[in-house]
Amino acid sequence: MNFLEEKILRDGTIKPGNILKIDSFLNHQIDIDIMRQMAYELKRRFRDVTVNKVLTIEASGIAIATMLGDLYDVPVVFAKKSETANSTDDKYMSQAYSFTHKKMNSVFVSKPYLHATDHVLIVDDFLADGQAVHALIDLVHQAGGEVAGIGIAVEKGQQKGGQQLREEGFRLESIAIIEEMDWQTQAIRFRDQPRHELGDTRIKHL
Amino acid sequence: MNFLEEKILRDGTIKPGNILKIDSFLNHQIDIDIMRQMAYELKRRFRDVTVNKVLTIEASGIAIATMLGDLYDVPVVFAKKSETANSTDDKYMSQAYSFTHKKMNSVFVSKPYLHATDHVLIVDDFLADGQAVHALIDLVHQAGGEVAGIGIAVEKGQQKGGQQLREEGFRLESIAIIEEMDWQTQAIRFRDQPRHELGDTRIKHL
Repeated sequence: MNFLEEKILRDGTIKPGNILKIDSFLNHQIDIDIMRQMAYELKRRFRDVTVNKVLTIEASGIAIATMLGDLYDVPVVFAKKSETANSTDDKYMSQAYSFTHKKMNSVFVSKPYLHATDHVLIVDDFLADGQAVHALIDLVHQAGGEVAGIGIAVEKGQQKGGQQLREEGFRLESIAIIEEMDWQTQAIRFRDQPRHELGDTRIKHL
Repeated sequence: MNFLEEKILRDGTIKPGNILKIDSFLNHQIDIDIMRQMAYELKRRFRDVTVNKVLTIEASGIAIATMLGDLYDVPVVFAKKSETANSTDDKYMSQAYSFTHKKMNSVFVSKPYLHATDHVLIVDDFLADGQAVHALIDLVHQAGGEVAGIGIAVEKGQQKGGQQLREEGFRLESIAIIEEMDWQTQAIRFRDQPRHELGDTRIKHL
């Protein structure tokens, strides 16, 4: 089990409706040590990839994106959400349905902040149906840029986002993938991830 | 002139209606180097103050709050905005009028993330009328905590927020304070800040 899976077991709560509440360390209060470890872990997993920009979406992706931007020493861009769809010439705009707020949001980035020469690492705290990530991919492609990879803290493995993105050929790395969870027993099962993805140990554990 | 004032002159744009657009480095795209310098500068200015938590409000305050949390090695909390005012027992809730969106927002923090023992550094990217900062102060006080200080990137010196907070006795540090600006000439004047606040030089410049 990795540090994030352990932290979820220790401090998370499972709520009815397949909701994992981890706002004590990820998306309301931020545990800086966990944030730092997540940034290092994502950078390590994408060590073979060129990244010159980190892209996320407001609000809760900004903390992990900022830590990654600091590590990579590259600019961070956060896409903004808008209830109105008033497209203008100076913005790349896409759409994402928010299951949390049960409405369609416009998602945009001002054109000067995405380029055809960009190798963009897209990051977010949660991946479920993949609506937000697909909107971010769309923005990068509108600018003619390349999606270098997608880094996620917690993926809900039973929802379709992750599988779809992998089938589409994107390099997706999620630090913790939840296979199933049960609010009545407060039990959770994580997807096994290959050990070599979690640590470059030279010496094998017997 | 300090690094942030210089950056504003170089990359900012003044728009009609007394609007300073600095989203190329502060609140849409994030210049990590400027963010890092701002965090160091605020920590330096508050070096005589005990801080065990950093509090901001979503979304654009999260980046600077994360960098400060990293420097101080303390938890970061970001207050959330809600259009509904459905108060519940498990939240501290306050109100702030948003001049940008021309509506009243509820601002809340879940109770477990603010305590009576907290020494809170409140940070935000902009200070104008002080609505958001006053709501954050209110949340800290509801929890019985102490506001250790208020750290701001850019204060609009002609709007009432800064003066009010200082008169109320809060320790407020703004890295850049705009005294006046003119969109027609693209000219800006910053408030002189005492040199000793900007650098601990031992040797005097002649």
